Order: sequence, then structure tokens, then C-alpha cells
Amino acid sequence: MKIYTAEEAGFCFGVKRALNIIDRLHESNESIEIYGQLIHNNTVLNNLKEKGIDYIDDLRSLNDKKKLILRTHGILKSDEEFLKDKDIFYVDATCPLVKKIHRIIEQINLSKNKILIIGNKDHPEIMAIRSYAKDSLVVNSIEELRFLKHEEPVSVVAQTTLDSGFFKMMIFEIIDRVEHVEIFNTICSATIERQEAVKKLAPKVDFLIVIGGKNSSNTKKLYNISKKINENTFHIENSSELRDPELTTIFQNFNSVGITAGASTPPEEIEDVKVFFRNFKTEKES
Amino acid sequence: MKIYTAEEAGFCFGVKRALNIIDRLHESNESIEIYGQLIHNNTVLNNLKEKGIDYIDDLRSLNDKKKLILRTHGILKSDEEFLKDKDIFYVDATCPLVKKIHRIIEQINLSKNKILIIGNKDHPEIMAIRSYAKDSLVVNSIEELRFLKHEEPVSVVAQTTLDSGFFKMMIFEIIDRVEHVEIFNTICSATIERQEAVKKLAPKVDFLIVIGGKNSSNTKKLYNISKKINENTFHIENSSELRDPELTTIFQNFNSVGITAGASTPPEEIEDVKVFFRNFKTEKES
Repeated sequence: MKIYTAEEAGFCFGVKRALNIIDRLHESNESIEIYGQLIHNNTVLNNLKEKGIDYIDDLRSLNDKKKLILRTHGILKSDEEFLKDKDIFYVDATCPLVKKIHRIIEQINLSKNKILIIGNKDHPEIMAIRSYAKDSLVVNSIEELRFLKHEEPVSVVAQTTLDSGFFKMMIFEIIDRVEHVEIFNTICSATIERQEAVKKLAPKVDFLIVIGGKNSSNTKKLYNISKKINENTFHIENSSELRDPELTTIFQNFNSVGITAGASTPPEEIEDVKVFFRNFKTEKES
Repeated sequence: MKIYTAEEAGFCFGVKRALNIIDRLHESNESIEIYGQLIHNNTVLNNLKEKGIDYIDDLRSLNDKKKLILRTHGILKSDEEFLKDKDIFYVDATCPLVKKIHRIIEQINLSKNKILIIGNKDHPEIMAIRSYAKDSLVVNSIEELRFLKHEEPVSVVAQTTLDSGFFKMMIFEIIDRVEHVEIFNTICSATIERQEAVKKLAPKVDFLIVIGGKNSSNTKKLYNISKKINENTFHIENSSELRDPELTTIFQNFNSVGITAGASTPPEEIEDVKVFFRNFKTEKES
């Protein structure tokens, strides 16, 4: 089996930064807890748990003996205010590119523009972004743009992990409907690079493996982009899933595999998948 | 010959308004001169000339016995200031939708944004718009976007008569290059309606006649849009051109004609073209 890895795959800058922060604190024997899932990757979360670093879902269950870390996706403005009010010390591991969107939103709040957030309204990044906005609408389909009015100016921001093709399609529709549109292209460059890399890879290989958390937004986008180009695209969380007999039967038919991974997928997991395919023998080969 | 007229064709609101202003002044026996070509249509300009209403190209040749009218495309800010400084009375026949762009530009001047004007830099509308801008760039191709910088915010306006498909394509490219983009979709609705109408008409007929001044921007766009869909598209200024033996030979091969006209084409000219084809007999018919 020939193995090709996407030119850009795996940990992004924001994830590396967050893990570095935790590593440094852990090495100095700090006791740590995280507000929310640091990133959407179970392997990473389990590794942290093994080191005694867990996460809490509610600020009311704070352990005041532990140092608090904020998740990469950001937290609600009201939660940040709660922490400040109570004078609780915390280390902010929010991705700086997400934090920048909060600042952009605060700027737009000063204008009369409605804030249009393109993304998944149930994703923690979007919930946090939205919490900073005075007058906002979260949209994830053309259909949801029907509320826009021609004369009502809008400012648009995007989830950092949005599919850039979808973002452009939405902008097309918005400028048809609204006369004055302000656009902040807040899709992060790591997202765009990973998406471009999988677009290049997908047509060249027989099938693709996209590695990443099942609730990882950017991984799902990579999967969707790949699937449109090459229908033999499979989304797994880690290499153990590859041993599924149904999958191995499918792999028998192929000679080349492309591998990509979401921004929260650790290098070890990518390596494990490569090792699996290095050792994989099709019936022809064996 | 079957004759089909585009659902929207001919005089737009701004042109009708300008001609109404002139008619009213003329009827009250005012002596009039126009600064620049009122609209880009020779028939209309000749009709005005026959009524004794001519245009001047230079404010230094003003006749102070005549009432001055400003062209529909707008005039340079410096010219408007000159008129105000000299206390010269004038009637502004600038299309209100063009005037609105001047106001938008003055608003953008208050921000730090570079102003990107999409249109033809030699067209009087664009020259006037540009004269209001502090820091602007006129672009009419993707190639010219190479000067944009990712971190430098831009505000975009469009020539009122721009092809809306081209506008979107340019926006597509701009949001790839620049993080913060403010868009004012200043293409006028009459332009969009005429463009949509010719898109509907072009595939249904054997050939098309686009009537309008050879230097009329919106007419040229109608011609280009039609030509892409139906290669048998011909741009004429008036019905007399249809008698060209080369053209009549071509028309012999066809059974149906579609007619559209630019925003500065008077209804009489559209009617003349219809009359020509009503009387036109193909060899089969005669």
C-alpha cells in the first residue's frame, strides 16, 4: 500500500500553544484543571487525564486548589466576567485567532451593524463568539439568510474552522441581499492550508483516512471536502478503528491511501495510522 | 421574424429623471447648457442639440446666460467646488444612485480603509467617484488586485453599471487576499434587472440586438453578457445600422430576434428596431 500524507495536517498553532502552556505548568508541578474540553480529541484528553489533568463543565465546581486553564475554543463572556468578579486566577489557552474574533465583535458592537456569524451555533467556539455580540445572528445555510434586509448593514465573521468554499458561497448570497456588508475573513490559515492540502491529495489516491475527534469541527470539514472529491473517504478517531473487518475488506481493493488529520490530532495518532498501513498487506501482496 | 423584447430594457430611473429636469426647464423657456454629455446616447444628445441644448467640456467656457445642468454620471469634486466658490447656480442631474456613492466615499474617508473602486477608470462616473476618495485604487481585473495587502482593510464600491457576476468574482478574490473587507454593493437595480432579463432572453432567440451608445458602459455590459450566451449578438446605436447589407444577409438565416437596450436608449429607438424587424422579410418568407 502506497501511503501519502497531506502536506498540511494535524496540530495547528493554537493547539500547540495550549498544550505547551499545560506542559509548562505541569512540569512546574502545578495542579491544573481545564474549563471545558481543551480540544476536541479524546486521545489528548485521555493523556491529560492520565497526568491528573481533567476538565470541568461548570464553573461552580471549581477546585480552588487547582490552576484554571481556559479551553482553546474560548469561553462565554459571562463566564469570563464571573472569573474576574470572583478574582479567580486563570490561564487563557483560548486560540489567539479566536480571541481576535472576540475583539472584532466588540468593535462591531460600537457600530449599528447586525453581526452575522457563519458557523455551527452549538459549537463552543461559536457560543463564545456570540456571547460577545450585542445584535447577532448565527447562520449555517443559505436558507437562514432569508431574515436579512437590503437596507440593514451587516458585519460578517466566520468560525475559524469553516470550509472556505462555503464561506465564499455565503458571502455571494449576502452581497446579493444586503447593500452594505463588512466582512472579516476569520477562517484561520491552518484551516485553509489543511483544506487546500486535502483537495490536492484526494484525487491522487484510491482512498483517504481523515483522523480526528468525531466532534471536531475542522476534522468534519476536512472529511466533507475530501468525500466530495473522493467518495472513498473515511473518518476515524484513531488507528484502532482501522482494524474493523468491514474496513479492512474495503482496503483490500485499493493500492494507495491518503492521510490527513484535524488541527487537534496529535502526531502520534497520525504515525499510528501510517504504521497500520505500512504493515497492511492486500491479498494480492500477501 | 418573431420579435421578443427583454422584460427590462431602455431608460432607467436616473436617465428619466435627468430628461425630466431638462424638459421642465426647457418648457419654462430657460436657456440651458450641460456640463459633459448628459447621457451616453447620441440620439438623445442630438435631440437636445436641436432644441438648442448643447454641452460643454470645460467649465472655463461657461455661458453665464445659460442655466447649467450637471451630467447624470456626476462631476469631479474639484469642479463642484469651483462652481460653489464662484457662486454659479446649477441643477444637479447626477443620478441619485451615483450621488449616493459620493456620500459613501466621504464616509469611508473618515476610516482608515483604502477605497477599492471596481470599474472603468476612464469612465466619467468613475472619475467623479474617485475624485471624492482620499486613498483609492480603481481596479477592473483580478490582475490589478495584486497590490492588496492581507492586513490592510479595504472598502469596496462598484460602478453602478458593473456586471454583477464580475463584481462577485472580484469580491471572491478580494476576500481571499484581505482579512477585513467592507462591501457596498452599489450596482444599481436597473442594471441588475436589465442584465437578468437579457440572460433569460439570450438562449431563447436566434439572435439579439443590443441598442445603445457605443461608449455607454451599461450597454457594453449587456452586449457582453448576451454574447457569452448567444454568439449572434449585435450592438447597434440605432435602427439605421440594421440596413447594413452584411447584417441583413446574416438576419436571413434566423427566425427570431431578441431586443434589449441600455439605460440611456430612448423608447423611440427601441420602437424603430421593432418596426425594422416587423417589416423584415427573410427569403423564405418573401
